[in-house]
Amino acid sequence: MKVLLNHRSIRKYKSDPIDESLLNDILTAGTRASTTGNMQVYSIIVTRSEEVKKKLLPLHFNQQMIIQAPVVLTFCADFNRFNKWCLQRKANPGYDNFLSFFTAAIDALLVAQNVCVAAEEQGLGICYLGTTTYTADKIVEVLNLPKGVVPITTVTMGYPDEKPEMSDRLPLAGVVHNEVYMDYSEGDIDQIYQHKEALPLTEQLLKENNKETLAQVFTDNRYTKKDNVAFSKVLLKVLEQQGFMNNE
Amino acid sequence: MKVLLNHRSIRKYKSDPIDESLLNDILTAGTRASTTGNMQVYSIIVTRSEEVKKKLLPLHFNQQMIIQAPVVLTFCADFNRFNKWCLQRKANPGYDNFLSFFTAAIDALLVAQNVCVAAEEQGLGICYLGTTTYTADKIVEVLNLPKGVVPITTVTMGYPDEKPEMSDRLPLAGVVHNEVYMDYSEGDIDQIYQHKEALPLTEQLLKENNKETLAQVFTDNRYTKKDNVAFSKVLLKVLEQQGFMNNE
Repeated sequence: MKVLLNHRSIRKYKSDPIDESLLNDILTAGTRASTTGNMQVYSIIVTRSEEVKKKLLPLHFNQQMIIQAPVVLTFCADFNRFNKWCLQRKANPGYDNFLSFFTAAIDALLVAQNVCVAAEEQGLGICYLGTTTYTADKIVEVLNLPKGVVPITTVTMGYPDEKPEMSDRLPLAGVVHNEVYMDYSEGDIDQIYQHKEALPLTEQLLKENNKETLAQVFTDNRYTKKDNVAFSKVLLKVLEQQGFMNNE
Repeated sequence: MKVLLNHRSIRKYKSDPIDESLLNDILTAGTRASTTGNMQVYSIIVTRSEEVKKKLLPLHFNQQMIIQAPVVLTFCADFNRFNKWCLQRKANPGYDNFLSFFTAAIDALLVAQNVCVAAEEQGLGICYLGTTTYTADKIVEVLNLPKGVVPITTVTMGYPDEKPEMSDRLPLAGVVHNEVYMDYSEGDIDQIYQHKEALPLTEQLLKENNKETLAQVFTDNRYTKKDNVAFSKVLLKVLEQQGFMNNE
């Protein structure tokens, strides 16, 4: 519990490498995560080489953690291995559809979070990169992902060279509902976001982005409709291309 | 690490309730998970009442854990709260597209796994139910999920009343790739699945299902193309209906 409660995303790493056997222990703990029907329909790509990292760097919008972290992990939804097994065993796989993609994505994300918890418990720091789905088409090329495989998320990992403040969270009552979903009134929304809006960080972001409200920093600068629509197209095209949109 | 390595899915629970403050601690630890841009675009529905559980039961294919477990958690992708906040703060949200849905689903799954790890560390048992996406349309109705909210996964939680064997996993080298994806040869597949295929559990499944290979148990009985296609349609329709398919 202490490990979970102390989580901070780490974006600066020491140059110390991660021992091979430590990384294997962490990945092994990761694979103990629940998986649909024990199919394990995911793969983990471990990238350490300068060469591959340099190719990944622009696909993660030049975030320098990609180069600086000793290990970059790309977690993928993967039905390729399972499909090959089925075909070699006189079985006819029906996993080329959206539901199967989503099942595999769930598998990949549960493993990813287990790996992160295990790493932090061992004194390592991690950071998730949301850019993976934005440039999934190009990541498929760089990592040689065959049909049946889609990159879902990327994690950088290494020994922390910073100790950032814990980031704020909404009050628990703001994200938890009892029995069924209780939709939010205007007053609820004001209350839930009150603490976040009063933070010094918010004031700083308003100044930096020249905005009147924190919400505008998100909608106008950080996560715009234009980008989201463009990235939606990329991701849906990748699902099609990787063989997950045969829904008839 | 010990908690992760000892994970077993628990399907039988004692009747002991989960203390309210313990559950809050577990959910709080859950919400420390990484979240895209610290937006926390997820919600957790905590169901304890017999009344709601009885409505959920058939949607989870009558798996009795839904009734037996003191707590049922439905983790949802949720842009409803964030959208409402934007609109109250003179900001124009552009989160009605597939990329935004997927971002919110990632958020929901990282929280779910953190919650499960925290619960197991406190001596509780958990089981994920993959049925959530299969009947997402009906879960939306039972849990009153508004536009912008999609159920992603369900977890039952309670004090274990069984101690099942650890389930098998593929060898780590079978799911990890170095630098880039190395596609599998026929020999690789044989080797990766060798241990699983030799288990007594496999022999039992072949008998029970009257099949020649374990792969056929999956393709013909457990996860059929027909079901997957039908569930794909449900899930895609729910994404449309909940306002996540405006990709132009």
